[in-house]
Amino acid sequence: MEIRVFAPASVANIGVGYDILGFALEKPGDEIVARFIDGKGLSIGQISGTNRLPFSVDKNTATYAAQALLNYLGKEDLGIELDIHKKMPFGSGLGSSAASAVGGVFAVNALLGSPLTKKELLHFAVLGEQLADGSYHADNVAPSLLGGIILIRDNTSLDITSLPIPDDLIAVVIYPEVEVLTRDSRNILKPEISLQKCVAQTGNLASFVAGLYRSDYELIGRSLTDHIIEPQRAVLIPHFYEIKKMALKMGALGCSISGAGPSIFALFKGESEANKGSEAMKNIFIQHGINATPYTSNINSQGAVVLSL
Amino acid sequence: MEIRVFAPASVANIGVGYDILGFALEKPGDEIVARFIDGKGLSIGQISGTNRLPFSVDKNTATYAAQALLNYLGKEDLGIELDIHKKMPFGSGLGSSAASAVGGVFAVNALLGSPLTKKELLHFAVLGEQLADGSYHADNVAPSLLGGIILIRDNTSLDITSLPIPDDLIAVVIYPEVEVLTRDSRNILKPEISLQKCVAQTGNLASFVAGLYRSDYELIGRSLTDHIIEPQRAVLIPHFYEIKKMALKMGALGCSISGAGPSIFALFKGESEANKGSEAMKNIFIQHGINATPYTSNINSQGAVVLSL
Repeated sequence: MEIRVFAPASVANIGVGYDILGFALEKPGDEIVARFIDGKGLSIGQISGTNRLPFSVDKNTATYAAQALLNYLGKEDLGIELDIHKKMPFGSGLGSSAASAVGGVFAVNALLGSPLTKKELLHFAVLGEQLADGSYHADNVAPSLLGGIILIRDNTSLDITSLPIPDDLIAVVIYPEVEVLTRDSRNILKPEISLQKCVAQTGNLASFVAGLYRSDYELIGRSLTDHIIEPQRAVLIPHFYEIKKMALKMGALGCSISGAGPSIFALFKGESEANKGSEAMKNIFIQHGINATPYTSNINSQGAVVLSL
Repeated sequence: MEIRVFAPASVANIGVGYDILGFALEKPGDEIVARFIDGKGLSIGQISGTNRLPFSVDKNTATYAAQALLNYLGKEDLGIELDIHKKMPFGSGLGSSAASAVGGVFAVNALLGSPLTKKELLHFAVLGEQLADGSYHADNVAPSLLGGIILIRDNTSLDITSLPIPDDLIAVVIYPEVEVLTRDSRNILKPEISLQKCVAQTGNLASFVAGLYRSDYELIGRSLTDHIIEPQRAVLIPHFYEIKKMALKMGALGCSISGAGPSIFALFKGESEANKGSEAMKNIFIQHGINATPYTSNINSQGAVVLSL
């Protein structure tokens, strides 16, 4: 018996919610297969799509998270093998490690007949993310697992709220083939910010949340200005402001950095505008000689899913 | 012909929304009477309830705001007199100057047959608040005028959103007779905060807003912890932490400083808990020899109203 699951990419921060907001994309994402095998304990069968992931259960995000779950369930002696099909780029700002951690945990839980709910799995997936990233935070993991737009009140207690998704909200993400390490992207941030900027940011953040509840696209648009993180990180992403300007010109409600970058996300009202915007944004990277992949989709409301039994 | 209006007190900041959140109380509040008189221009007839307000139209918050409105309407030559009945304390953190500014503007607009909507009046009332306080901000003015729980995305453009009021939400405010000047209360704040505290605060703020939309009292409660302002300002208010502890013990969802203080607000689910909590909070001030007045009410959803024609 084996189970194949899909765990989607995600956009953390959403501009105004550093470390506390994230949403899931419909694509790309990782596929992970879990199966029972003879013998004892968890192991990795194959890894496709990359040669950068370790086969050691303790060092691989997907198996580290899955192992933590198996330990919790007292099932560490079961013979289980995971295949990891990496179908999204590393260091892209699309929650690659989070998707692997979610996939590993979700696949093993499904293989065992789903003893835990998705919400109960969250902690174990976040442990996997912590292995990759050094900090215990759920802004990619929670949307990848649960789907939707997720607000994290507190990363330590994983106190999360699923926010409403306005019907016509379409996400565009452009991934340029420029590597930015999450660690560098964190280190560039100053440890202090001005109270004035915090006030501006909080007004936007709270209004963004209200805009989602009201399906008020204009309010969402006016709220999507990041006063704190984007001005510090934009230097890491070539041509960021040129692309942002283009996104807004093409009707984007807002545009900012996806997670730690270098991917850039924009939110649009309606698919047609999103497709045109996506093309125009990508073309700027191409014109500058940087290969770039666009992803355009609804907000993924399902999160991790079982693809086949 | 004369018009008497009521403009309510308000609680700015609500703990987690410094400069961007406020709600209106049902009481206390100011009453302002506007009438046509012979002669030209705006003047003050009588002021009751205080001997601290100036009779000069240019220096009095209510008339300064009303004059700005009359200038805008091109009605500065009309003979209009305002009586100001101050029915709430100064320097209390209850939006006293905001209530006067709102009352002045709202009374004059009503006397003229309401040429402007409440929303259109907001700017003029904020001008009055600015005279009193030195900064153009609407976190007391907007709830006093419009009622409800108001979110201000941006104070400069007065981009505001009215947030939903959960049915059983009851506000308690305790005003101790200790004066704290808004100016001192602003000056005590450090101009910089840590990014870490900003993240904690934003998680709480966004979750507070979500909690209001969901009528999720527990989420509202978990969200009402102010990591930024309260720890800096609490020193200005004697026995603050003792009273906060009592409020939480009595079942308050949260408790923090109302505006710039010294008033303390708490939010409760249900009237009976609120009444008991209010009594217990007040008694701590009394035990320490500080006279204190409690106000317990629903969130005032109407804001400024005409009392009689």
